Parts: sequence; C-alpha cells; structure tokens
Amino acid sequence: MNIHGTKIGILGGGQLGKMLIEAALPWDLELHMLDPDAQAPCHKIAASFTVGSLKDFDTVYNFGKGKDLITIEIENVNTVALEKLQAEGVKVYPQPEIIRLIQDKRLQKKFYKENNIPTADFILIEEAEDIRKHLEFLPAFQKLGREGYDGRGVARIQTENDIGKALAGPGLLEKQVNYTKELSVIVTRNQSGSIAAYPVVEMAFHPEKNLVEYLFSPADISRGEEEKAKRLAEKIIETLGMTGILAVEMFLTEDGEILVNEIAPRVHNSGHQTIEGNVTSQFQQHLRAILNLKPGDTSVLIPSAMINILGEEGFDGPVKYQGFAEVLAIEGASIHLYGKKVTKPYRKMGHVTVVDSNKERLKEKAKRIKELIKVIS
Amino acid sequence: MNIHGTKIGILGGGQLGKMLIEAALPWDLELHMLDPDAQAPCHKIAASFTVGSLKDFDTVYNFGKGKDLITIEIENVNTVALEKLQAEGVKVYPQPEIIRLIQDKRLQKKFYKENNIPTADFILIEEAEDIRKHLEFLPAFQKLGREGYDGRGVARIQTENDIGKALAGPGLLEKQVNYTKELSVIVTRNQSGSIAAYPVVEMAFHPEKNLVEYLFSPADISRGEEEKAKRLAEKIIETLGMTGILAVEMFLTEDGEILVNEIAPRVHNSGHQTIEGNVTSQFQQHLRAILNLKPGDTSVLIPSAMINILGEEGFDGPVKYQGFAEVLAIEGASIHLYGKKVTKPYRKMGHVTVVDSNKERLKEKAKRIKELIKVIS
Repeated sequence: MNIHGTKIGILGGGQLGKMLIEAALPWDLELHMLDPDAQAPCHKIAASFTVGSLKDFDTVYNFGKGKDLITIEIENVNTVALEKLQAEGVKVYPQPEIIRLIQDKRLQKKFYKENNIPTADFILIEEAEDIRKHLEFLPAFQKLGREGYDGRGVARIQTENDIGKALAGPGLLEKQVNYTKELSVIVTRNQSGSIAAYPVVEMAFHPEKNLVEYLFSPADISRGEEEKAKRLAEKIIETLGMTGILAVEMFLTEDGEILVNEIAPRVHNSGHQTIEGNVTSQFQQHLRAILNLKPGDTSVLIPSAMINILGEEGFDGPVKYQGFAEVLAIEGASIHLYGKKVTKPYRKMGHVTVVDSNKERLKEKAKRIKELIKVIS
Repeated sequence: MNIHGTKIGILGGGQLGKMLIEAALPWDLELHMLDPDAQAPCHKIAASFTVGSLKDFDTVYNFGKGKDLITIEIENVNTVALEKLQAEGVKVYPQPEIIRLIQDKRLQKKFYKENNIPTADFILIEEAEDIRKHLEFLPAFQKLGREGYDGRGVARIQTENDIGKALAGPGLLEKQVNYTKELSVIVTRNQSGSIAAYPVVEMAFHPEKNLVEYLFSPADISRGEEEKAKRLAEKIIETLGMTGILAVEMFLTEDGEILVNEIAPRVHNSGHQTIEGNVTSQFQQHLRAILNLKPGDTSVLIPSAMINILGEEGFDGPVKYQGFAEVLAIEGASIHLYGKKVTKPYRKMGHVTVVDSNKERLKEKAKRIKELIKVIS
C-alpha cells in the first residue's frame, strides 16, 4: 500500500478525530470524516466532511465505499456496514468484529472470562428486576450492555433500596471493587502484529460524573505493577488480534491485583498527554498501526498531567473561554480546545496537558490549571 | 484583545505557514493566508486562502483590511501596505519598519555596527565592479542587499579572478570568517516586551547549496559560548523592539568570538526541531508573542537533530516519497512533509526531526535518515 495514495475515512469527527487530523498533517495525509453533527470539531479541518448517522447502514456503507481504509474515533457505529465494506476489500481497523465485541459490555466481560483476563466478578442480567435475585452480590454497579459512554449507562446499587435507580435494559451486575488507583494503558498493534504499550498512567475521576478529571503520567506504582499492567494490555490486544490503538482501563486493588475495567478500541482520553509527554503521541501511533508502520517509541519524555476542560455547570450556549492566557503563563502548559461551538455542563470542551520534571510541582500546577480555566457561555 | 475573536492574517502560505496552522489548531485559532502560489502548502488547510502577490501594495492592503492582526512567514512583502494597515489600527508583528530593515542586508549590517553587535567586517558596494577597488579585502562574500534567500544572492569572491562571477546590484562585501561552527538562536519577544531565547543549536550546511543540511540541538559548545550567544540574540530583539520570533544565525570563530551572520524576523528552519525537542515549539511561541501571551518554556526536553528533505537532483515534477516507512522505523524520528505537489532539485520538501538522549546515537540516526529519505518524481 502506498501510504500517500491511501484514502482514509474516519467514523466520527469529534475531538479525537480533530487530534488525529493534527497528527496526520505533518505526514501530508488527508482524513475524510463522517459525523452526525454538522458543527463537529472536524467540520472545517477534515479533507472532506460528511454529515450523517454513524449507526445507519447505508450512510456508513456509502461513506466507506471508495475509501481504502476506514477507522473510528467512537465505537457506536454500524458494524454490519463495516463488515460488508471489509468483504469488498476496504481495510477496516479496528476490525468490525472487535468493535462489535466492545460495543457490548456483556460480550466484553465474557471475553475476559474466556481468556483468563482478570476482571471484577459479574453476573449477566436481562432487566433491572433481575437484581433482586442477586442481593447477596451487592454492593455492585449495574452496567447496561450497550450505549454506555462517558459515565452514562452505569448505576450504583448499594442495597436492595437502590433497585429503583436501576437502568432499563439488558446488562450486568459488577461487583464493587476496592481499588487504590485507576490505571490506564494505551497499547497499539499494527497490521503485521507488532505491539507496543505506553507506560501506565493513573487517573482521578470526577466524584460524581465518572469523567476523568486529572491524569498523571507515568503512574506512581511499583515496577512490578507497571509490568503486570503493560503485559495485561498486550495480552488483550494480542488475543483480540486487533489493529489500532486500544485503551485498557484497570483497577489496582488493595492487594496489588490488577483488574481490567473497560477497554476502548480507539484513541482515548487517557492518552491525550502523550502529545506533549511522550516521544510518539497516541494519535500518530494509531496512524502508524492502521498504515502498518512500525510502532513509534512510547517512552515518557517528561512527567505530565492532563486536565479535562469540562463545560461549567449552569452554562448552556455559545462557548466562551476564561483563563486561557493565565493557564498558558504556567510553564509547560499546553491547551487543546476542541472547537465546539456550544457548551453545556460537563461537556468535554478541551484539555490541558502540563509537563514538569518534578512530580510535586506537576500536581500543584494541575490543580492551579483546573481552577483557572473555565468554559462558560 | 479577546484571543478567540482575533482575525489573524499571514503573509505567505508555505511550509512555515503550514506549521503555524498546526500550532494554531489546538488553540482553535483560525489563520487566513495570502500566497502567490495557488498550490502552496497551506492552500487546503488555512481558514481562508487568498492567491496574490505579497509584494503588491493593493493585494497586501486588501488582504490585511478587516484583519485584527497580520504576521509574516516570509520577509519579502510589501511593507508600505503594512505601514498603512498599521496606521489604520491593524496590529502588524513583526513591525513593518523591522521587516524593511531586515529585507536589506545593507541596512542589517549598518544596524549591527551602530549597535555594537559583533559581525564580520564589511564594505558597502553599489555594483559588482566596485569589488576591484577593494582587492585587499578579499577573500570575501559578495551579498546582494535585497532578495537573497536560501543561499541565493551570495557569491564567493576569493581573488580578483572571481569578479566575473559577482552578482549585479547593490550589496556588500563581507570578510570571509574562519569559523568553527555555525550557530543559531531563536528568540522571542511578546507585545509587552517579555523576551525568551531558546538554547543554541548548531547547523551543518550543504557544502554547495548554502542550505541547512543537519541541525543539532543543543549545540555542542561551552557554557560561556552558550550564554554569549543567547545574550546577543536577546540584545538584538530588544534593540529592535520587535514582537514575534527572531532567528539569529551566528558564527563561532576559532578565537571563541561570536559574530552575527544574518537575522530573520520569523519562524525559521533552525527552529523546526523545537516541535519535538523542546517544551514549546517556535510556532506556538510566535503565536504567543503576537497575541501577547507569556513566552513558553524554551527548554530542551531531549537532544534532537533536524534533517531537511530536499528535492533530489535530477527530478522535476509531481512528488513521490521514498523511505517514508523506513525513516519512521527509526526510534524517535518524526517526519514533516510540506505537501508541495511538485519537486525540483534542492527544493525544501519537508524535514525530519529525530530525538535521542544519546548524542552519538543521535548523529548516527541523522545520517541514516539522510540516506533513507528521498523526494523524487
């Protein structure tokens, strides 16, 4: 395949697509995007931008027809259309059957079990009322099989009294894990099967919204834990035989055990800091994987922290930024705005990465940045 | 000034403009470009792209009218139009009078002399024949006052016999300097006068074409030489009172003296490695300067080398790349292609930056890259 003659299509044109475009520009690659939102972050910067549903068979099929290579920046896409495109000779990475597996948390959990991948105990349930049959399993999280994303599709069921809060639809009950840290490993595999894992990062989540609030790279864990987490991520991508970037979110338990929480077959919020903090960004790494180039060096250049910029509570409308200049006055801070025209509470509007060779100073800077930058309307 | 409401226009839409766009995307800034070449690197990725002469008063004036801020990526532009725009309230950085000064090597040299900035001895001449009056000054370089760029406009006059090779037009004779290294310092100054210099880099030029062939960052010089070079660059930008990035090329002589060779009031080939090798890239730094943000951290993250990708001799036509995948298989290598559709011998078609914590390995990698990557047709 001649890289510079390859027509690349991407399902989704949001912030992840935007950062893929930013990574593709220095290579003079053209990325064509499909997104339902005519004002999505990529709409002005993609080589071409098609407005349409990612879940509709005809839309996805017609978009993919005539492309050489299709990839995704969101996993809720029509995999039947992708399978047909693949059968007709279009390369689709990650492969459609892997996207389908990951779209459904029930299938994901079964995959872990079948392949001896450590994960929290779970019970499949068909509807919320089934929880009553498993009261001995509580406290637990109820997770819907499909459509969960950025904290949606998850309910915390502590006792029988919480069953009224349970969500409708097939899903699973997952045992509540007592963890000390939430970790993530970004791992890549190219077409030829070369695999490379990034150093482990650790995440701090928003206490209510289940969104990453801070991320620190590298994680402050033992060398043994680091190796265990990386080997686990490598095992998953190898078992899947997947091409592209895979994000593996994990729990580190009080006993030093590592359990897989969720995986995402795409560039991921827990890899944004690789743009500034690592030799190769996850975005370039994904392009390397799908174009069958050798994986780039994943090393950390300098410790980094990533802070998501979320829409402020109480604001809904045309976007305004506060604290832009103040954040950029902090040494080592880089701002990424996603170019969304409208803000709403907790919408992901951008992120900041800050680097510092001193980890204590890094944490202080991250907190200061969080206080300084606001998206209002 | 509200940064996100600022309409920014750039004179020139070549590779430097392209890398400015790449730096502006994460900030969600829109850059509007003017360039005479309808196929220039920025033509598809600028917020708007106007085709027209940079030297024509009306074209530049009409382009600048309605913008809030104008900057340049090439210095051969109509400064009269820029002065009129400035008088009408458009911010122009670098300031028109500085662009005019730097457009003419004769004025540049006089500026050094008047401000006690060390530079090679010189004599102003009005035409080639004047050289005969200064035979005692040879060996020397004849430099035309205007229109010199990328090695053009310079003739080496060793003895009286070379006068036939001299160029027509007013210029200067510059004493040949016995130097051990060619250095460059990128320095920035924002609107408020905050100045920051990057660590010194050293350049190796193509033996015939006077184009940078390799660049190494940081330069292998003493701490005293490093400080002297940085202070000199800071003195120049402060004396000029310029806003924006200034590249200061220097000679390190056998006696440890530092002489200023040339300055360029814009992002520069000798700062490309800052994208991967330093905390803040020169491109983001220029945006910081003209938007009056605090200068970013200029520190080296990791030693880097930069290799220009020049069109191969013997090829003239639609571009093809050789060695793309092979270069990307070298750890720490990043390719930047400028997206020019047509190659010709020695045309700047792209560059590669490679990083390595070990300086010897870095040099070996740079040589290997130089051999691997070719632009043919």
